Amino acid sequence: MVERGIILLSGGIDSTTTLAIAGKEGFELFALSFRYGQRNRFELQAAEHIARIFKVKTHIILDIDLSVFGGSALTTDIPVPKDRSEEEIVQTIPITYVPARNIIFLSFGLSWAESCGASDIFIGVNAIDYSGYPDCRPEFIEAFERTANIGTKASIQGRPFKIHTPLIQMTKAQIIRKGVELGVDYSFTRSCYDPSGDGKACGRCDSCLLRKKGFREAGVADPTNYRS
Amino acid sequence: MVERGIILLSGGIDSTTTLAIAGKEGFELFALSFRYGQRNRFELQAAEHIARIFKVKTHIILDIDLSVFGGSALTTDIPVPKDRSEEEIVQTIPITYVPARNIIFLSFGLSWAESCGASDIFIGVNAIDYSGYPDCRPEFIEAFERTANIGTKASIQGRPFKIHTPLIQMTKAQIIRKGVELGVDYSFTRSCYDPSGDGKACGRCDSCLLRKKGFREAGVADPTNYRS
Repeated sequence: MVERGIILLSGGIDSTTTLAIAGKEGFELFALSFRYGQRNRFELQAAEHIARIFKVKTHIILDIDLSVFGGSALTTDIPVPKDRSEEEIVQTIPITYVPARNIIFLSFGLSWAESCGASDIFIGVNAIDYSGYPDCRPEFIEAFERTANIGTKASIQGRPFKIHTPLIQMTKAQIIRKGVELGVDYSFTRSCYDPSGDGKACGRCDSCLLRKKGFREAGVADPTNYRS
Repeated sequence: MVERGIILLSGGIDSTTTLAIAGKEGFELFALSFRYGQRNRFELQAAEHIARIFKVKTHIILDIDLSVFGGSALTTDIPVPKDRSEEEIVQTIPITYVPARNIIFLSFGLSWAESCGASDIFIGVNAIDYSGYPDCRPEFIEAFERTANIGTKASIQGRPFKIHTPLIQMTKAQIIRKGVELGVDYSFTRSCYDPSGDGKACGRCDSCLLRKKGFREAGVADPTNYRS
């Protein structure tokens, strides 16, 4: 029997590469995306497109409004920081951090997994070329996996849940090279925290800067349409 | 400064009593409820009414559709079991279990807490007179609290989060007595998994049976309008 894998899919480089890896590993793909109040509405179009390319079995886009809580530049009018140095990007938790976002996303992934008989959940978190978010680190993922296995039927019967983080120790360049090897077309992915109305990436937020650096270091042409 | 407390409020006996306890302890009350696809839409009306009575500072009702995942009698057309014995109720995980519900609810509570500067989250879980749900047990709560403190800014700065479970080792009768002592009017609370269109409790699901038993053992008149 083919195992089912739940993949959290934002439509960016990391989650798209993670989807490609899960597919390569033979999982039947169940993709989960969130309309959570993010500024970048283009990333969900990207996620839908990517889900079709990878022929996922089911793609669910859930509506959860995290903007009611405020507290993040990604879900409110707080300006997105621009032109930060590499040191700043990796050393501080920026205002683009959305409180508890990954624990919420993983919990929904867990709910779907438990409902459909999957034991494998994939998330494209990365603790190397990242924005310093605490919920992207290995110790968080391990703690979540433990909690998941205590708080579900898996505590009593059946296979335990596994949270797969194939990218967690890779640089952005390594991720891009891996994706290219698996046939990912990154022109469909979206990373920008603050795109313009016509969908162009700003080219200056942390996410754009990490993306540019990744393509540069990977020696792969960056297909992104940047404003600057 | 008055500390803020996030209280997960379903509108049932347990969460209402928990709200009363948090208020008694001096917390500024922030109540969080969910429209998650549950059959009992009356419980959200109850939650709104109770939030007003307790003069909570803010009451947020979030829309999260767990019915898309299926898998539970509370969110689908699967019949709610009736007339189960006490042994059956406490010994098996019934079909009314909603996969990963409490980890989702707690994660949203955590997101709000982190956004508004609260460190205290209250949940009325109970591992004595309960339906055998794995996400109501102390070991799950401890694992979640640990995960919360690793996956948020609290891992780096500020007070750690505490998940308060004041009812976890109490019988339903003890909970009701505690609530009566704190002035809770249980006629506003709703417990039934399968109410009729006019809002009457079925009187026969696990939740109604535990509620009846609780009032009986507490020696308190049961104000509930049961069909049977």
